[in-house]
Amino acid sequence: MSPDENAIRTLVAVWMQASQQGDLDTVLSLMADDVVFMVPGREPFGKDAFRNQAGAMQGMKMQGQSEIRELKVLDGWAYARNRIALTITPPGGEPVRRTGYTLTLFRKEADGRWLLARDANLLAPA
Amino acid sequence: MSPDENAIRTLVAVWMQASQQGDLDTVLSLMADDVVFMVPGREPFGKDAFRNQAGAMQGMKMQGQSEIRELKVLDGWAYARNRIALTITPPGGEPVRRTGYTLTLFRKEADGRWLLARDANLLAPA
Repeated sequence: MSPDENAIRTLVAVWMQASQQGDLDTVLSLMADDVVFMVPGREPFGKDAFRNQAGAMQGMKMQGQSEIRELKVLDGWAYARNRIALTITPPGGEPVRRTGYTLTLFRKEADGRWLLARDANLLAPA
Repeated sequence: MSPDENAIRTLVAVWMQASQQGDLDTVLSLMADDVVFMVPGREPFGKDAFRNQAGAMQGMKMQGQSEIRELKVLDGWAYARNRIALTITPPGGEPVRRTGYTLTLFRKEADGRWLLARDANLLAPA
């Protein structure tokens, strides 16, 4: 496995782990400042909206699995297709299960770090 | 505008026009044989499933607008974020409107042609 591929796989694993632990600072550190998130039914949003949304989800318990189905490193960029299964449990509420795929673009920054740059999230109720 | 960017914009325009005209052969000629389409709520699918699905939609009238919000050419690949608004009218039925975004990867083939290679479709009922 190339160092680039290894770095991206590590990023995805750290992202999932930090998300489950509610470690928002770590998640934010893994995305580019100009990141664009895309989900069905709303306009694309960036880092500030992600931060606000994650803040509003505090207290929810999240468990998930992520499996990279495809990963290709291009010149300074990479894309991945990821299969994700999440169970989100609000405080005192019933767990909600969401499954599906993401198509994600990663960009290698000038300092050599890979960051998440574009993300299309197709997860739907299971 | 670079020749590559121009070629990709032309591909997107021809794709939209051919889709509206029910010209499935042209649409199929614009995608790679190993294309992967991703939509919410189902497993990713390829060219054969696209062909079958489009065949099952024959008789439906489709009108749409497509606006490229971002296009970046990488080394032999490119990605685009597209805003799409579709109105689909089944025979004798009411029109259904769907809007949203796509995140699409294009690949430059050995013969110099650009083809659609990966597509995440986030369109939802308007």
